[in-house]
Formats: sequence, structure tokens, C-alpha cells
Amino acid sequence: MIQQTEKQKPAAGEGGITSRAQDYGQWYLDVIRRAQLAEHSAVRGCMVIRPHGYAIWEKLQRELDDRFKETGHQNAYFPMFIPLSLLAKEETHAAGFAKECAIVTHYRLKSKDGVVAPDPESKLDEPLIIRPTSETIIWEQFKGWIQSYRDLPLLINQWCNIVRWEMRTRLFLRTAEFLWQEGHTAHATEAEAIAETEKMLGVYTDVAENILAVPVLRGRKTAGERFAGALDTYCIEGMMQDGKALQMGTSHYLGQNFAKSAGVQFLSAEGRLEYVYASSWGVSTRLIGALIMAHSDDTGLILPPRLAPIQIAIVPIYKSDEEKVKVLVEARAVFAELKAQGLAVKLDDREGFTPGAKYYEWEGKGVPLRVEVGPKDLEKGSLCLVRRFVKDIPGEADQARRKRAKSFLPRAEAMASIKTILDEMQKELLERARAFRDSRSRVIDTIADFERFFKEEGGGFAWVHWAGDAAQEEEMAKRFETSIRCIPLPDDIPAAARGAGQCILTGKPSAQRVVMAKSY
Amino acid sequence: MIQQTEKQKPAAGEGGITSRAQDYGQWYLDVIRRAQLAEHSAVRGCMVIRPHGYAIWEKLQRELDDRFKETGHQNAYFPMFIPLSLLAKEETHAAGFAKECAIVTHYRLKSKDGVVAPDPESKLDEPLIIRPTSETIIWEQFKGWIQSYRDLPLLINQWCNIVRWEMRTRLFLRTAEFLWQEGHTAHATEAEAIAETEKMLGVYTDVAENILAVPVLRGRKTAGERFAGALDTYCIEGMMQDGKALQMGTSHYLGQNFAKSAGVQFLSAEGRLEYVYASSWGVSTRLIGALIMAHSDDTGLILPPRLAPIQIAIVPIYKSDEEKVKVLVEARAVFAELKAQGLAVKLDDREGFTPGAKYYEWEGKGVPLRVEVGPKDLEKGSLCLVRRFVKDIPGEADQARRKRAKSFLPRAEAMASIKTILDEMQKELLERARAFRDSRSRVIDTIADFERFFKEEGGGFAWVHWAGDAAQEEEMAKRFETSIRCIPLPDDIPAAARGAGQCILTGKPSAQRVVMAKSY
Repeated sequence: MIQQTEKQKPAAGEGGITSRAQDYGQWYLDVIRRAQLAEHSAVRGCMVIRPHGYAIWEKLQRELDDRFKETGHQNAYFPMFIPLSLLAKEETHAAGFAKECAIVTHYRLKSKDGVVAPDPESKLDEPLIIRPTSETIIWEQFKGWIQSYRDLPLLINQWCNIVRWEMRTRLFLRTAEFLWQEGHTAHATEAEAIAETEKMLGVYTDVAENILAVPVLRGRKTAGERFAGALDTYCIEGMMQDGKALQMGTSHYLGQNFAKSAGVQFLSAEGRLEYVYASSWGVSTRLIGALIMAHSDDTGLILPPRLAPIQIAIVPIYKSDEEKVKVLVEARAVFAELKAQGLAVKLDDREGFTPGAKYYEWEGKGVPLRVEVGPKDLEKGSLCLVRRFVKDIPGEADQARRKRAKSFLPRAEAMASIKTILDEMQKELLERARAFRDSRSRVIDTIADFERFFKEEGGGFAWVHWAGDAAQEEEMAKRFETSIRCIPLPDDIPAAARGAGQCILTGKPSAQRVVMAKSY
Repeated sequence: MIQQTEKQKPAAGEGGITSRAQDYGQWYLDVIRRAQLAEHSAVRGCMVIRPHGYAIWEKLQRELDDRFKETGHQNAYFPMFIPLSLLAKEETHAAGFAKECAIVTHYRLKSKDGVVAPDPESKLDEPLIIRPTSETIIWEQFKGWIQSYRDLPLLINQWCNIVRWEMRTRLFLRTAEFLWQEGHTAHATEAEAIAETEKMLGVYTDVAENILAVPVLRGRKTAGERFAGALDTYCIEGMMQDGKALQMGTSHYLGQNFAKSAGVQFLSAEGRLEYVYASSWGVSTRLIGALIMAHSDDTGLILPPRLAPIQIAIVPIYKSDEEKVKVLVEARAVFAELKAQGLAVKLDDREGFTPGAKYYEWEGKGVPLRVEVGPKDLEKGSLCLVRRFVKDIPGEADQARRKRAKSFLPRAEAMASIKTILDEMQKELLERARAFRDSRSRVIDTIADFERFFKEEGGGFAWVHWAGDAAQEEEMAKRFETSIRCIPLPDDIPAAARGAGQCILTGKPSAQRVVMAKSY
């Protein structure tokens, strides 16, 4: 069983990484540290995203942004300050975020007797809230953009920073400030707004599965877990290697709530004045946390090739100056050829680092493929390819696995097959994650089985019938630390979990199973 | 003379645009409104960047970011909150920004008797400043990243939002919140840090002239205009169509100031512990303001082709259904062919809009080239190309100019020449702006000539000798509203302005001329 909460002194495994089996939480932090993805800052709860972490975010942004644009969305930018009165307009929404707002109250500093402090005379008449999400400020603006049905649909996305004052933070997963995108759309009809909500859930699913290689379960949130101000919240839930669920993205159908609170009406084709229907949807830097926890191993980060800022690291190996000259000529040629293939390749020709130190760095940073170029390879006309990971063979020793990850190929064959190898690796990651999720998913019909699953078998996704009320959900959370992750969409329900039944706790009738799990 | 301050009711010119001659300030706002680039928000001093404005920013970001990466920089992200004590560490720096800080003091809202307000119990022990620039928070982090000379140079860039609490704001040019990039680099030697500072000024110059098509003057700021905490501030200054200067980018040599206040030392190759040398540099959404003011005309926005999110708008023209079918087939073919050429092309096949309404929209939005496809063009096998602007012929009537902008070309010739036409237009814009700047630049040696230049001849860049003190600079500002824009770099001094001389005000000896101008 995974001892998430165990707070032992981390054992110095490879790269000082605590093993997953020993302490999953510490392992996560160790992987991030070794890969130099992020770190804590001088500001409580705020993280610094280091260059390697940010490069992953940039690749992810590009994948998402291209899909947003292909589906007709345009980017824009709105102020990060929301006047308090504006946030308060939509009451449910304001209540949902009231407890985690950063509030600006002054606009000037003053030095008095050597102490610098906010100047009392610069106090704002109205406090400004730093956006915890932008529905209110954006809908205030939409009022001026929407007059008639010809202005609809309005399909807007924003890339920005967000602040939610979290008390317990965790790099990438939960920080006071984080980066995200938020889509905000306006439609003439309910059907169109719901279709948009579902379409964007589809885009997120595509990126999660085909880029991040994390299989996700699509579903709806229960009323208690809905976005503050939404009529319906859809989500995608991934499973991490400790069996916990991670919410990876949400898409909300907002009905006419924000249109009404901001007063956004349009003249329909039939000449009637009507309120607009809305959706909003977002994913954040949290996805990098998902990526790390879904794939990485006890050696460090593992990146899916399609998201790796560096897909291939070329390491030249030489001893004499003579060897160096020859090897570097070849390494540069390999670099140029792979670059010409459109691959993200890095030639690590740094002086003063041993090949071993270079292997160590790229391994810890999750680079999928390493190409070693040495004098022997030159002689033989071959290249040595080393995969960051290979399919698991249960019980295999580390040394044997490492040997299996290494292959010597004739140069031409190597160059011709690298793209295919990367594609295979991408596919393997998704399959591996899917197999893991399946192995940790159970159709469960009794509380006794439920208890055994979470308390003895490590837990995972429990497919259960549920008809309890909020208090009973709370009871389950207290007893098992689980929550209803989602009410899965029909297509995502495995055959064995389909159909009606009786609530696992109350025995009341239930139309379909939900998924319960521990979560981040 | 240009009546910048005149506050007449704007005349409804084309698209409701006030002419530059009538009211330059209002013209600027009208161009922005017609092109839907940006607008004011519900928050004092903060703007909303609308999709067309943001698309320009995205293209500009790509141009800059590619160059940053080519020169070895990596992106990262740091918290937007700076603890007050951290900001205060570098005293000059803190003093420079103290009067324009947004300050976060609480982290929770509370509802009492129906009134929502900051919860007094959530008051922060230490206020947080929203970054007005990030030197202090970044150098705090660099401390952990730099140990030895092998960690140097450290070349980091950040794309983010910034807050400087401005009292008098103006869309793009001066807003409380704005978007920018800030480079922060650390080096082992002073020479390397200065070389970096100058290299990045070169990158900015390249982008300003070759992408924005705005010629810039490179120079150093005087002590009084230096960035708070810098030893030397380099800048690029552009000239707007009203003869005023606009600072378009700055690059600072910071010496060891921030390294010392943050305690960042490294072990040199010689085994000594030394403080690191630093640079920082930034450009912002202000560049969009420069772009608008340098090129646009009384009809609306003019975009340089290399920065236009849409380079070509194709407008199909038809009356009958039969015509429509044929015309749309051709319009789609033209679209596909231009797209295949790598051009940013938009097929405007919207229903319910007249061709005239479409021309009007793309003209106002500054799209460089319009392609009209109508039944007559189909018959003749030709296409009608309409340029957004042509070279000026003084005194030419609007109608004649419009005729000259239009050309009918055989289809194949049109398709083969569009790229060349766009390149020509890009070049023309730069040449036009350079000719304008030259026409409004003067080598001036007496206060009488200076006064005549600024009070009777519209003003511009005055090349003058200067050896006055701060109080005398202030005197010039009061009398003429001018300031020293920069001490130009030797290569940027025209032949007629070279050499030593005597201060225009005090008669004291001066080694080289400076440029004085009114400015934004």
C-alpha cells in the first residue's frame, strides 16, 4: 500500500529520488527538483516555474491554442483586477470564491521613519479582487460586444495568471497563483451553449490522451462540486500512480446566469430581446502535475515525446582530441539531420561534463531518447539509441531493463526509425497508463468491498451506485477520504459498470454508477 | 501645427475617425475603436485588449520570442507578488516604484449584514506588491540557481502582466496593468553583461524596424531618466506622426546592484567568490501604440504586412445565386493557394454583409491587401487587388489615391506577385516613417531656433548640445514640454549632428549632441 502521508527522511535513491513505494508525496517533489521543473518562492504558496517546466507549458499551450483556434476561438486579454461590486453581482459565484481572494486595497507606498508601508492616503474607494476566474469582468465587457444574433456566437479565450488563496499548496497541483487559459463563450441558444461546453471537453480529452498520454474519464460533477455560478460542470479525471484522481480540466454550462447579472441581451433573428447563453472552460499548469504523476518513475521525470521540449539529446563521447574532432563532426551531422526531420533535438556538446553527467541530466529531465555518438559507433557506422523507458516486465532487475532500453542500429536505420520510435513511446505511455487505471478500477456494490478496496488494496476508481444526500457524501469522505469524482458520460462507462442498481450506502435506487475516489 | 490638446467635438470623418490634423489624440482613440483593438474596462486605468489587438500582440510575441531563443534565452515564470520587504531591499529601485504600486493586504472576503468586504481577520502580516517589474523576486531566486561560473551566463525571460498605478492613462501607451516581457540575465563579468545589454537593444531595434516598420534611434538615457537601480539604461525611441517621441523599449545594465542586495555570488574559474553582473530589458504592449501612431491614416489602422494577423482579406462579390456558386468556388481556390504560400489569409464569406461593409471592416482593421473576386473577374480570368495604402503623392485627392491602390491583374500573375507586393508594402512603411522622421529632425544650436521648432514648426527631434544640470533640464521641460530622449549611440548620429559643441542653454562645452523632443 502506498504511504502517501508517511513523513520519513527521504532515502537517497537515484538522483536522490525517494521511491514511489516509500513515499509518493516526497517522490513527486523529488522528481520536480531533479528535473528542475519548479520550486517554491519567497512568496507563500506561489511557485516559480523554471525553464524546463515552462518549456513544457509552452508546448502544451501551443497544442491547446492551435485547437482553440481551429474551433473558431480568438484570444483576448481582460484586466486581472475585478472591482468588488462586480464580483459580488453574481451571488453564488462570489460566495464560491470569497474565501480565497487576494484583495488590493492601496496603490502607493510611503516611507516614514525608515519604514516603508502602504500609504493610508492611497486607500482605494473600492477594493479590487485579483481574478480567481474572469466571468464577471468578461461579461461586463461582453455587454458592449453583443447587440444582435449576428454577433453570436462570441468565442473568446484568455491565457493569464489566476489567484486563489490556497492554504495548503503543492507545486503545480495547488498554488496561490497559477497560469491557465479560460474560455468564455456566448450563444444564442441553450443547445448551442451546451454543444460548445461538450465540444471543449472533447478538446481537453484529445490533448490529455493524445499529447499528455493520460487517459481520462469524462463526466459531470455533482451539484456540490459544480463551479460556482454554473448550471452544469463537466470534467475530465485522470488517475495518478497512487490511485488517486486528479481533475485535469473543467467545462461549464453557465445558462443565462452571467448574462442576466451583467445584463447581456441580444436581438434574436425573430426580433426578440433575449438573454445570451454561456459556457466557460479552463485548464491550468496543474496539467504538468498530472503529467509528472501519471508517468514518471523512481529515476525521475518521464515526458511523452509529443510534449517533450527536447525529444532527443545527442551526447558525444570521446577521450582524445583526435576522437573529439571526428565524433563532433558526426554528432553535428546527426543533429542537423534530426532537426531537418522536424524533431526537437539537443546536441549536448558542453565542455567539462562527463558523458555520464550528461546522461544523468537528460534522464532526470525526462528526455525520451538519447543518442550516443562515440568512436566505436563511428567505426561501425552505427548509433546507440537509449530510450528513457521501455515496457515494464514485472520483477525485472534495473540493470536488465536498462540494457533492454539500449539499441545499436546501423546509422541509416537509426535515422530512419527515430520518429517511429518516438511515436511508439508516445503510444506505450498511454497504454501503460490505461492498463494501470484499469487495474485500479473496480465495480463495487457493498460498503465492505468499498472499504477493502480503499483501505487494503490501495484504492483507485470505484464504480458505485449512489443515491445519498450531501450529508451522506460527507460521511463517505470522512470514513474513506473519497468523493464522487464524476457522473461519467455514457460512452465512458465500461460494460461491467452499466445499468441501474442500488445505492452502495442507502440502498436507494440509482440510475447509473458514479466514480468515487480519493483525489488531489 | 498639430493641435494635440484641442478638445473639440470629433468630426465624423470616414468611420467616424477624427483627422490627425484636427485632433491627433482623438484620432488615435478613433483608430483603436474602429479597428476594435482595445477599450477601457470597468477598472480604472486598465484596458481590455480585444481579439484583433491581441492577435497583433501574439504575432509580435512570436517575433520577439523566436529572437530571444535564438540568442540563447529561456522562458520561465516567477510570482507576481513581491513581499514588501523584498522590494525594499534595493533602495533606489523601491523608491522608483513606491508611488505606483498595487498593494495586496487581505486574502479573504466576508459578508456582514449583506455587505461584502475584506475580512479584517485575513489581513496579511506583510503586504504584497504586485510586480511593477521583477528584478527583486527574480534575483531572490537566482541565488539558488547560481553557484559557480559554470552556471553563467544565466539568460532568462518572462512574459507576464505588470502593474504600475498610473494616474493618467491612455490605451496601450500607459495603463495601470499591461503585458510585457522582461529579460533578466546574470554574467560572470561586467563586459559580458554590457554586451548582453547592447545585444538585446539590437534585437529590439531589429523588431522595431523590420517587423513594426518603425525606425528607431538608439541611445542612452540621462541619469535622471535611468531605470531605478540601473547603472546605465539604453533605449530605442521612435517618432510618432505628431512629431513626439515614444520610448519603445529599454535595456538596462544593472552592474552588481541586484546581485549585492540579493546576495548572489559565484565561484569564478579562478576560485574567487564574486558578485554576479546583471542586465534586464523589456518591451510591452506599448509597442502596439507605437505601431498605430507611426503608420495609421485618417481612414484607420495600417498594419505592416509582417505583423498583420490577416495579411489578405478575400471578398467574394455576387448578386444572383448562380454567380454566388461560381464566385465562391474561385474565392476558395484563391484562399487555398495563398494559404499554401504561407500567407495569413481570410476568406470573408459571411452572409448578410454587403461587399462594401466587408471592405470597410478590413480597411479599418488595417489589413494590408484585399482581393476582390467577382463575376467579371471570373470572366476575364483576373483578380482585383486593393492595397491598404500606396506611396503618398502630396495634394492628391482621396479618390485618385484609392484608384491608384487598386489593380486588376491576370490571375496567375496576381497569385505570383502577392508576396512581393506585401514585401514592398512592408518596405514602403519603413521608408515613409523614416522620411517623416528625417523631415521632422533638426540640428539646432540656439534657444531661439529651438523655440521656433517646437512652437511654430510642429517640433520633432531636436539635435542639440547639452551640458545643463537637472534644474536646467526641468526649465526646458517647463518652457517647451521637451525632455532629453536619449544620448544617441555614435552610429545613430547623422553626419550633420556629429562633433563637439556648446550647450544650447548654458553655452558650456558638450562632447556630443543629445536628442530633445516632446514625448509620450
